[in-house]
Amino acid sequence: MDVMGRSKNPPAQGSKTPDAPTDGTAVGSDFLQLDIGQAPPGGRIAWLADQLRSAVADGRLPVGARLPASRVLAQELHVTRGVVTEAYRRLAESGQIAGRGRLGTVVVAAPAAPRTPARDTTPAGAGSGPAPEASFFASADREGAVDALRALPCRIDLSPGVPDLAAFPRTAWLRAERAVLAGVGPADFGYGDPRGAPALRRAVVGWLARNRGIRADPDEVVVVAGVAQALGLLGKLLRTDGIGRIAVEDPGSLGARQQLEYGGHEIVPVPVDTGGLDVGVLRASGARAVLLTPAHQFPTGVVLDGERRRDLLSWAADGGVVIEDDYDAEHRYDRPPVPALRSLMPEGVCYAGSVSKLLAPALRVGWLLVPPDRLDAAVTAKRYADLGNGVLTQLVLARLMDSGELERHLRHVRRRHRRRRDVMLRAIEEHLPGAQVHGAAAGLHLMVTFGDRGPRDVDLAAAALERGVKAHPLSWHRISPGPPGLVLGYAAGPAHEIEEGVAVLGTALRGLRPRQR
Amino acid sequence: MDVMGRSKNPPAQGSKTPDAPTDGTAVGSDFLQLDIGQAPPGGRIAWLADQLRSAVADGRLPVGARLPASRVLAQELHVTRGVVTEAYRRLAESGQIAGRGRLGTVVVAAPAAPRTPARDTTPAGAGSGPAPEASFFASADREGAVDALRALPCRIDLSPGVPDLAAFPRTAWLRAERAVLAGVGPADFGYGDPRGAPALRRAVVGWLARNRGIRADPDEVVVVAGVAQALGLLGKLLRTDGIGRIAVEDPGSLGARQQLEYGGHEIVPVPVDTGGLDVGVLRASGARAVLLTPAHQFPTGVVLDGERRRDLLSWAADGGVVIEDDYDAEHRYDRPPVPALRSLMPEGVCYAGSVSKLLAPALRVGWLLVPPDRLDAAVTAKRYADLGNGVLTQLVLARLMDSGELERHLRHVRRRHRRRRDVMLRAIEEHLPGAQVHGAAAGLHLMVTFGDRGPRDVDLAAAALERGVKAHPLSWHRISPGPPGLVLGYAAGPAHEIEEGVAVLGTALRGLRPRQR
Repeated sequence: MDVMGRSKNPPAQGSKTPDAPTDGTAVGSDFLQLDIGQAPPGGRIAWLADQLRSAVADGRLPVGARLPASRVLAQELHVTRGVVTEAYRRLAESGQIAGRGRLGTVVVAAPAAPRTPARDTTPAGAGSGPAPEASFFASADREGAVDALRALPCRIDLSPGVPDLAAFPRTAWLRAERAVLAGVGPADFGYGDPRGAPALRRAVVGWLARNRGIRADPDEVVVVAGVAQALGLLGKLLRTDGIGRIAVEDPGSLGARQQLEYGGHEIVPVPVDTGGLDVGVLRASGARAVLLTPAHQFPTGVVLDGERRRDLLSWAADGGVVIEDDYDAEHRYDRPPVPALRSLMPEGVCYAGSVSKLLAPALRVGWLLVPPDRLDAAVTAKRYADLGNGVLTQLVLARLMDSGELERHLRHVRRRHRRRRDVMLRAIEEHLPGAQVHGAAAGLHLMVTFGDRGPRDVDLAAAALERGVKAHPLSWHRISPGPPGLVLGYAAGPAHEIEEGVAVLGTALRGLRPRQR
Repeated sequence: MDVMGRSKNPPAQGSKTPDAPTDGTAVGSDFLQLDIGQAPPGGRIAWLADQLRSAVADGRLPVGARLPASRVLAQELHVTRGVVTEAYRRLAESGQIAGRGRLGTVVVAAPAAPRTPARDTTPAGAGSGPAPEASFFASADREGAVDALRALPCRIDLSPGVPDLAAFPRTAWLRAERAVLAGVGPADFGYGDPRGAPALRRAVVGWLARNRGIRADPDEVVVVAGVAQALGLLGKLLRTDGIGRIAVEDPGSLGARQQLEYGGHEIVPVPVDTGGLDVGVLRASGARAVLLTPAHQFPTGVVLDGERRRDLLSWAADGGVVIEDDYDAEHRYDRPPVPALRSLMPEGVCYAGSVSKLLAPALRVGWLLVPPDRLDAAVTAKRYADLGNGVLTQLVLARLMDSGELERHLRHVRRRHRRRRDVMLRAIEEHLPGAQVHGAAAGLHLMVTFGDRGPRDVDLAAAALERGVKAHPLSWHRISPGPPGLVLGYAAGPAHEIEEGVAVLGTALRGLRPRQR
């Protein structure tokens, strides 16, 4: 069967008839898909006014929508400009549209018929009743709990995982963007290499060499949309290899665990103690892959110690797949830097990092390094995920990395983070005198525990949220049971909010009776 | 077992000893993870110089890498600034580093030992032999063929699917970015709603209402990283629903088909004729989902006609899932606009669009609308894919859409595209006199066929590439066999390249003998 489409179009001859629109659009308007052929002869103005009125009434043109310039619409419809201006005038008379000077003609009247009621604007699972807090924290494992908590309003947010966002280097970013826009060629705006822009891959290699002890070639770097995407791509690779069980730290990130489960993986919890992940338990579990945060464990803040590192790398040498989430290694205050596992064993470690904690999570840029034998598969997975990251953000980041601007920014926010960490420690001493603090030597958060007799941490988080303060209950990030606690971010907000937030936690805690054993 | 980390840190007291570094980093340097504790007493300068030399030699500090300011490094290492400046001086003397004024101190010497040879920089499958063209086109179905072709060098690129990228509105973009950076709050830089920035979802709703006849609520819009990601997310949803077979147009996009196959779907080819997809064949196939391009079929350019639309929507009403890829509907020249299927049946049509053809593919921004009963699942899939698109690009786009800038840009490039289309049509008439042209009334490309006696189109594409001209062989986009042809993009390049490129195709065609039947 022949698949041929319409017959050959005659080439345009370059000659113009007086009626030919100058923008080359021969028939009809994209705006509302108006088809002037439907207008009755001699009734074009009334027809056009009707079309506009019904678009305003049914919400296709909501209040604030801008109408095309009369000249433009007239060209597209092959009518005189007077037809359009007269139709516009009729709607203006009935109060539905109005001229707004340089803004043009905009819709000003609410539609005659009420629209269908707006959908709930909170994400699925966020709850919408009058007092959602208590019920909210009770069901920690439901899809998107972290997102849903994020969407709830609050006065003071002590959620972990966010750097000082007020310090985002807006001026440097705009300057770099201007240079990027002045320098890129047209081809840079096309479909690019799914691994990412070469300039950013080179910059990431320099960053990792300088700051994380990692040697890599730019062709080994896959730019990804944050560690979350890296984890999704790796999950896909492992499933293809028949690896369906992945070991994770317990306690460990709820979000990462949910993501792996969504991808169809079975989760194997491995306990974390003061030396980090218990590699003996990992070995005994039979899991062939493990996800961990060796430089600064989430949420406990412990560092994987030297002996465990050696054990883990020997497990990797025996064929285990190590996924290193290097999520906030650059933020440290009272301890020496810890090199990445990847720097010790490139052929056994998949490494993921991002700018989420360096600059801002909302940029959604990270990087993935995999062992050489998995590189082609990782590039293919990224290609079919989204064809690669957006190029402008990549090129701006590359400039900030190459110019030293990002390192300067990091030094700047580290000073601020450290001061805020100290404020939180003092506030905890004052308002939560019985609490034990963990993992405050580095990172953007700390963990407090209350001992086995403390109240349920979901009740504490709910009581705090009722008072306008958001924090993560530690049990969210646990798989096996353990003492209750909270995971408290201190990097994002100013000192007075940290002080007040912790004071509210103290009030909430005193309002809850100790648990019956 | 208790999971507790290190013991509680004493809060800093605010008092400073003279030696305390002002940036709060107590021990060691992130730069190269230098640990001054390893330096022998009295030998700190020599130790530091050695560390730097070996980092230059092993490539951790490549030529062009910038060293930290001596003041900064001295602070981090708890040494006097003189230690660092002297170590720097020694490397400068041996010619490995040099001061570069405002750029600071940079590495200037190649490493002493040669690095491991750089990896091949072309993506997997691009081939690397001296004359890759012929072998390249022979194996059309291999992973990433489109990407690999893209990465090959050429003089003139007539690949389809790219708008006029030289027209990218850089000034308007930068202006909008400045306004965005001035207006966003710190919270906007944090983790956001996985559905995308509310401002962009509102702007997309307005765009779709004005230009595609679609009514939607902003809460129904999921911002995605282009149509490719939309397709990946939908594939995941369908698999979850037990739908493993997806019908596609034949001919149809090779990239989309490969993506669905990568996601584990079985492809069911459905022929396309002058009325578009043959809905009778679709119905008979038993497939429960179909991906199609109804407004401008890729690659034939046909429009799904009225009867087929009604048939297809009736098939959807019987439970079929329609995936509408509205990839370049806004580009049309000699025909009326075609409303989206989604505008006729929101409850039965999944709709995907993007700015790839409106502005630039490299932005990687698109939108997905699904029927209401699939919305939660789509948001969850997007959440676990990457937690949402990057925010700055979204907010800039929202401004360009709201201000009318994007519509102005579209009118501007449509004029240019139409002229280029006309140039290509004339060139084909002159240089490819036997060719039939299809689908030139709209879009960014056209299709030519040569009849059953023409040469193999992969041979023609290879011969053209040998002469520096890139084009897609039609057979790449076919599943069942059919007449040979080429898919030729005319939007991206200037007129003289189009003329020369088509002339080269004519030369290449005359150099190939007709096939033996």
